[in-house]
Amino acid sequence: MPNSDLLILGIDLGGTKILTSIINPQGKMLSRDHSVTPASKGPEAVIQAILESAERALKGASITIGGVSAIGVGAPGLSDPKAGILFTSPNLPGWEDVPLRDILQEKLKKKAFLINDGSAAALGEYYFGAAKGVSHFVYVTISTGIGGGIVIDGQIYSGSTGMAGEIGHMTIADEGPLCQCGNQGCWEALASGTALARAAQKRIESGEETTILNFADGKIENVTAETIHSAAEKGDRVANELILKTAYYVGVGLANLINIFNPEMIVIGGGLSNIGDRLLKPAYEVAERRAFKRAYQAVRFVQAALGRNSGVLGAAAFAYHEMKKKG
Amino acid sequence: MPNSDLLILGIDLGGTKILTSIINPQGKMLSRDHSVTPASKGPEAVIQAILESAERALKGASITIGGVSAIGVGAPGLSDPKAGILFTSPNLPGWEDVPLRDILQEKLKKKAFLINDGSAAALGEYYFGAAKGVSHFVYVTISTGIGGGIVIDGQIYSGSTGMAGEIGHMTIADEGPLCQCGNQGCWEALASGTALARAAQKRIESGEETTILNFADGKIENVTAETIHSAAEKGDRVANELILKTAYYVGVGLANLINIFNPEMIVIGGGLSNIGDRLLKPAYEVAERRAFKRAYQAVRFVQAALGRNSGVLGAAAFAYHEMKKKG
Repeated sequence: MPNSDLLILGIDLGGTKILTSIINPQGKMLSRDHSVTPASKGPEAVIQAILESAERALKGASITIGGVSAIGVGAPGLSDPKAGILFTSPNLPGWEDVPLRDILQEKLKKKAFLINDGSAAALGEYYFGAAKGVSHFVYVTISTGIGGGIVIDGQIYSGSTGMAGEIGHMTIADEGPLCQCGNQGCWEALASGTALARAAQKRIESGEETTILNFADGKIENVTAETIHSAAEKGDRVANELILKTAYYVGVGLANLINIFNPEMIVIGGGLSNIGDRLLKPAYEVAERRAFKRAYQAVRFVQAALGRNSGVLGAAAFAYHEMKKKG
Repeated sequence: MPNSDLLILGIDLGGTKILTSIINPQGKMLSRDHSVTPASKGPEAVIQAILESAERALKGASITIGGVSAIGVGAPGLSDPKAGILFTSPNLPGWEDVPLRDILQEKLKKKAFLINDGSAAALGEYYFGAAKGVSHFVYVTISTGIGGGIVIDGQIYSGSTGMAGEIGHMTIADEGPLCQCGNQGCWEALASGTALARAAQKRIESGEETTILNFADGKIENVTAETIHSAAEKGDRVANELILKTAYYVGVGLANLINIFNPEMIVIGGGLSNIGDRLLKPAYEVAERRAFKRAYQAVRFVQAALGRNSGVLGAAAFAYHEMKKKG
């Protein structure tokens, strides 16, 4: 039985924001601190920002670090949870083989656990959100990139060296656009919010008639998935076509996940999923056309329930359960 | 400890052949019967052929059905191991929801276990072949199609309804050629032996100068991966180009497996892998270029060790271990 006295300091380190929270085993957030990641200033500055945010979160819950049992930190990029090392992260310049777990342990004098951000969010949804009680599922987050987590038998599948689950970097169009990972035609390069915005910018630049710019203060660099969505809602033809094309690519990748994993559930989170049915319905139809019928029929599609809190909640839950395992 | 008195009747049902064998827990084949699958005659004829083959295998080992402890049967297509049902198989016309496990159990009066052929071959390599002692690996078989099996913690990952591991049907080129599964640009449609032969036939038909036909009795319908390989070995330029193109597609799919699973090992079997370095070296190079460097470095590529016996050995091992689990 979860002991509600056991509190965890959860940290969700992102390329643009740091979210820290004091969380109990039932997933209740006793405090929550949100700050900007000083990513361009390098690892030291970011770690300093994490420590300051943690302090505010502790203060918010009226405790000191002595009041928590462990720290769970979710981080983007490639990491090895066993070694506690963040190898590299496209969104965190200068991070190379940073022993983030041990650094936090030392600075805060508290046992810490490191987990990939996609895996953390998957665990958040598993313990407290849309996938409660579902032991075989794939979590997909579609935002600036595409990330995910694979849950098998209630455990994150992390592969031989902790790097499994990079589903955003499966090739779905071998001659497709370059991805920032160096590969070509990755799912992320075609179906992410960034890909959608880029496609819109191209069509605007080519002089097509569209109202998208009206939703972006007239500035092409302000065109995002959100502005395209707003234009689509007002009936803009180009915006609707762009969303449909993105939905198509989302569906191609979902079909791959269905054929490979035959999951009970696919949980879809991330900013782009907020577009909702306009994006997801056609995406599911593409997946239905492309996947094995039986495997498609076996899967339930569900939108993530925890929004921006999935990562920090999952990182805390991960720390809690790892601690329990180790006694 | 394995008890060598426990014998298993292993059955490897394929679209073109049936292989049955009496196998001990150490993977020793006491007898082996090989026959043609009367696939076009439908399920009843095929089941009859299985029973006759089983009888010959038993006779070959000088025992009766009473002398085996269980039956393990590997079958192609989509099946549910828990229910023992073969849902459908592109290579077995007329098979729709056939309760193959229960049919064999009834006919042979012996406990039976059904497993997908790719999963069976993966288990064969795990217990007796190239992946002995490796608990996280992906088995890939490249022949007329592409199949596979995912081993996690020494167990086949079979998904929520037994259909996981259809890695041959992940899209790697969303607008690529139609696949017989109904999807487009599947790995199998681009990187299998069938795809290679079809590409060669196209180039021959278009009048390109090549010696491939010399290795196929001058008949275009006799052009196979083997004949292309033979021509390539004698320095045929077109044959070499065709193999390189296939290697490229093999590599694209391998990169996906590496990014998704971060496996310790990828075991490659199937007829096409017999081409060896001429195919596999360039394929690994493509995978290296496309996958995450760290994840690529973590994987070992190994050729399957059991050849055509991997499936029947794995089906037997599956039955043996399922039986042990159930006491």
